[in-house]
Amino acid sequence: MRKLKLDELNRVTPEEFKEQKKFPVSVVLDNIRSGMNVGSFFRTGDAFAIEKIYLTGYTPRPPHKEIFKTAIGASETVAWEHHQEAVPLIRSLKSKGWYCVGIEQTTASVFLQNVTKPRQPIAVVFGNEVHGISDDLLPLLDEVWEVPQFGTKHSLNVSVCGGIILWEVIRELL
Amino acid sequence: MRKLKLDELNRVTPEEFKEQKKFPVSVVLDNIRSGMNVGSFFRTGDAFAIEKIYLTGYTPRPPHKEIFKTAIGASETVAWEHHQEAVPLIRSLKSKGWYCVGIEQTTASVFLQNVTKPRQPIAVVFGNEVHGISDDLLPLLDEVWEVPQFGTKHSLNVSVCGGIILWEVIRELL
Repeated sequence: MRKLKLDELNRVTPEEFKEQKKFPVSVVLDNIRSGMNVGSFFRTGDAFAIEKIYLTGYTPRPPHKEIFKTAIGASETVAWEHHQEAVPLIRSLKSKGWYCVGIEQTTASVFLQNVTKPRQPIAVVFGNEVHGISDDLLPLLDEVWEVPQFGTKHSLNVSVCGGIILWEVIRELL
Repeated sequence: MRKLKLDELNRVTPEEFKEQKKFPVSVVLDNIRSGMNVGSFFRTGDAFAIEKIYLTGYTPRPPHKEIFKTAIGASETVAWEHHQEAVPLIRSLKSKGWYCVGIEQTTASVFLQNVTKPRQPIAVVFGNEVHGISDDLLPLLDEVWEVPQFGTKHSLNVSVCGGIILWEVIRELL
């Protein structure tokens, strides 16, 4: 066994990425505070070839120093849009057939290990690092998922949580 | 549906965490450069109640400003040890019955969606952010797993990857 060389990873070029078929998965980042978290979502979104990242509310957007630091180029490859308001965006996505799932600890959340094969196309909504998904968005969501946790902290880092959720969705599509 | 209040999350106190039964999962972080990545592993390790984090080589260890920033307290809850050399540590873990899995892109890696229910107790090894797992560690590992990637970048962020892998292991134990 030996490590693969970079050219053996068969990664696509940014031009090829733009042309290639994406997984029917998008992400909505609403009122995320940290550009580093946003950049991390771009890097993960590139790895999993997702369709689009929607940046809503005061979520930082490219060009942005913190985003660049953690996206390491992926903010140039993954398609993104900014919308000032998340509510009309979610309504619009739903009207176009997107299944909208929020990641939040609520009275009606489904623990991730109990999620059945999710419908597609799917848009996954993440909210503010401290306050979570805003109360006006929650009622619009088709479903809410929660990663079970067994420790002392209230939550996972949002970009780590994003990786877990996106992998969970993508693995069902492989 | 409404968001849960903090006291409804039923999180344990640091004292309760130390006493509670852990999942038979440990993490080895060998020659990780960034304290922020290390801190992120502590936060994820707390959430998933793992047994221990081994910090080897030049991986930063607490007390450390960057670790504190992303661990937000979890470096006080998750048990950890520092070992200067990873090779004897892995040999020792194996001799105690730990199944040692590396996360790396190699000629013999198993893609994560093809991993069968992993043996336990399991130690998951992550290497340097750029160079990955060192060549002297690779031959000692029982298995190597790889997260499939479809984009332009060579790899995921190591702490995002850590979240994905730990979730994949923990979900099998629920």
